[in-house]
Amino acid sequence: MKKTLLALLWLPLAAMAQPADDAAAIKKISDEILRNGKAYDLLRQLTKQIGGRLAGSPQFAKAVEWGKITMEQNGADKVFLQECMVPHWVRGGQDKAVITEIDKKKTSRTLDVLALGNSLGSGTVSAQVLAIDDFAELERRKDEVKGKIVYYNHGFDPTNVKPFVSYGQTGQYRGAGPSRAAKYGAVGVMIRSLTESAANDPHTGSTRYNDSFPKIPCIAVGPRDADYVWEMSRKSSFSMSMSTYGHNLPDTIGHNVIAELKGTEFPDQYITIGGHLDSWDVNEGASDDGTGVVHTIEIMRALQAIGYKPKHTLRFVLFANEENGLRGGTKYAAEAKAKNEKHVFALESDAGGFTPRGFSLQVNKEQMAKLNSWIPLLSPYGTFEFTPDGGGADVGPLNRTFGIPVGELIPDPQRYFDLHHARSDVFENVNKRELLLGAVNMAALIYLVDKYGL
Amino acid sequence: MKKTLLALLWLPLAAMAQPADDAAAIKKISDEILRNGKAYDLLRQLTKQIGGRLAGSPQFAKAVEWGKITMEQNGADKVFLQECMVPHWVRGGQDKAVITEIDKKKTSRTLDVLALGNSLGSGTVSAQVLAIDDFAELERRKDEVKGKIVYYNHGFDPTNVKPFVSYGQTGQYRGAGPSRAAKYGAVGVMIRSLTESAANDPHTGSTRYNDSFPKIPCIAVGPRDADYVWEMSRKSSFSMSMSTYGHNLPDTIGHNVIAELKGTEFPDQYITIGGHLDSWDVNEGASDDGTGVVHTIEIMRALQAIGYKPKHTLRFVLFANEENGLRGGTKYAAEAKAKNEKHVFALESDAGGFTPRGFSLQVNKEQMAKLNSWIPLLSPYGTFEFTPDGGGADVGPLNRTFGIPVGELIPDPQRYFDLHHARSDVFENVNKRELLLGAVNMAALIYLVDKYGL
Repeated sequence: MKKTLLALLWLPLAAMAQPADDAAAIKKISDEILRNGKAYDLLRQLTKQIGGRLAGSPQFAKAVEWGKITMEQNGADKVFLQECMVPHWVRGGQDKAVITEIDKKKTSRTLDVLALGNSLGSGTVSAQVLAIDDFAELERRKDEVKGKIVYYNHGFDPTNVKPFVSYGQTGQYRGAGPSRAAKYGAVGVMIRSLTESAANDPHTGSTRYNDSFPKIPCIAVGPRDADYVWEMSRKSSFSMSMSTYGHNLPDTIGHNVIAELKGTEFPDQYITIGGHLDSWDVNEGASDDGTGVVHTIEIMRALQAIGYKPKHTLRFVLFANEENGLRGGTKYAAEAKAKNEKHVFALESDAGGFTPRGFSLQVNKEQMAKLNSWIPLLSPYGTFEFTPDGGGADVGPLNRTFGIPVGELIPDPQRYFDLHHARSDVFENVNKRELLLGAVNMAALIYLVDKYGL
Repeated sequence: MKKTLLALLWLPLAAMAQPADDAAAIKKISDEILRNGKAYDLLRQLTKQIGGRLAGSPQFAKAVEWGKITMEQNGADKVFLQECMVPHWVRGGQDKAVITEIDKKKTSRTLDVLALGNSLGSGTVSAQVLAIDDFAELERRKDEVKGKIVYYNHGFDPTNVKPFVSYGQTGQYRGAGPSRAAKYGAVGVMIRSLTESAANDPHTGSTRYNDSFPKIPCIAVGPRDADYVWEMSRKSSFSMSMSTYGHNLPDTIGHNVIAELKGTEFPDQYITIGGHLDSWDVNEGASDDGTGVVHTIEIMRALQAIGYKPKHTLRFVLFANEENGLRGGTKYAAEAKAKNEKHVFALESDAGGFTPRGFSLQVNKEQMAKLNSWIPLLSPYGTFEFTPDGGGADVGPLNRTFGIPVGELIPDPQRYFDLHHARSDVFENVNKRELLLGAVNMAALIYLVDKYGL
């Protein structure tokens, strides 16, 4: 009885953070990353030497090779490729859109547009434009849709302090907008780009066709051109010629790139850290998600460099296909299940390399309490909150498969949607110190979870 | 007795924030700024139409005129200019530095340099270079200094998570470095620019001569050239020709630009909100401190636009001369004292227009407790902490004169020293949403202080 009591007393004590030791360990990790971090140089390599790397593309295959070699050179105990079939969508040509006022036959303006990812196009579609604000207006005016190109003007609500809330509110127009318009006979769709940026860059991203309706071409238009179109639509009728060439080639072989630091105490229990290696084709995929890729490699490099011996096996994963299929994250979880692996926690970085503000998690109440008890250890590095807003896309399948806690780094979000899926998502828009601090905060959280569990 | 007790009960209650009402009021302020904010457009005007505006320059006079008109157009009850004498330093020419290896007489490289503000120069000085790390090395090697140009290589410590800590540690080389070297007979000084930026832009900023020693010319060198110089200095001896032309014209008339929203309950008690209108001459003064200027105007505009009636008189001040003299802030406090004004609180913005993280204050323990009780009202907008690290430079004299609490907005600091006093401090390096959120958080704090006191 006495023994049991002691054990009961002992267990919670062992599971509690020891502030002084842990503060010193985290400082050591931080100093290593801020002093010797390679993340910024690695990001330059990935973005400038390889560039855009949509799943299935030759650039993606190059990125896999780069990822494998880079992980091997930066301290991995072991690196392996995990094969998974990925979609192979190609843009197929130069997206274009020109609008002309119907009455006057004189005004014509070329808009800056990009076809949506996964969309199908086989040349030019010309039709009158029905410009509407949202789905409610689509339903009210469904009888006017037939034979027209529908333009959804619905934009970000600037009063949302968190731009991801705005993205959540407007993302449905990119995803479901084309099929919902096709249902009523539309021949094409254009959406306002999902951004509040003052620049005119259009922002691509996946659409999802509903197989019940015709798969009509669809494009996103730059914000300033969107303003122009919307203003004109209030005054006059106009037509648009939109040219797109998107099509799907057969699914092809892709790879998750996986590195390990072997656990000393629980080698068969896994903590996963990752970002996605693929990106859209129109940019360098710097903030989406080159920063997550180099965060992942940097954490591994730094832990190895300071001689850290993890209790659990740490898996560093560059996921194959987040943007237009989530096949990488899905495969990783399926393989883990097939091999009956034991997973403890998974953390990803897929919201940019900006100054960290905290983490978003899918955890239970007790786990959240434990995380909150670590805030004093993390706050010197920027993390001041854990929010219950779920993990990221690529660790989602692990959560759904095993019910394990998952999380995502939350960097400052204000600039993310200026770059997200736009041509402006390039290396130059990433700041070295902000990038390194993301790795510091992630590594510190991994250290705590590895030491105390979650 | 009963009455007294009631009064005692009533007072603290009245002074406590009423969460629901206050949350709604702050949301109204935030929505107004995020939806209709003019700060970004005003910053474009100030930076692109006027540009660099060192105190005493014709551009500074233009900025005063712009500030007055802009404040008048954006809701002020009253705008006035407060005259103060300001220094009138001019760069006087094209700063230049060329280094040559002494032994080989062949390597010569032109460095990217800027003379330090307030420094004096009258042409070209050529001498052998003594490259040292810090003041300790200067003291150890003082016998070697005579007739040489001293180069201080001391840079930012990258392991400081807060770059302002690094600035605090290295600022002494810019301020005191020239005179400390002149004391031992140096004929010129070059410092490593106060930045961790990966770019090669040199960063100017004020030096402070000690009148006891010769006022030798001094320059800051870009970080990449600094690396080159330091590396070369480990291998060989070299000389440098540095050309600078800085000189002081007679002090001239400058102005603080002051606008008011009249208090309804305590019209003779003042809350001050401000930023400094002057900037260095080599850039557009966008983040230092155009953002503080437009924060100030935006807060006034938004409070007026939503019909807010302040209890205290709110003073919106564009200070005349922070960069090389602090004459504006000093004059403002001196006038307040001369007129026996009652000041309650002063808040400034002089750390950039990046996403806000909190405020730094000079307050007592009770005031800090009160501020902390407001965190739940401010955190939806980004503010998660108040730190006791003091107010900014321009509100410092008010604090020293009246002992009143003062504070400064703390935006994310990671990018500030990439731009600070460098050519890269331009409009394009400011993000609209980040900028507006700074005004939101400041306005919310002002609302709370105006309502509940501090």
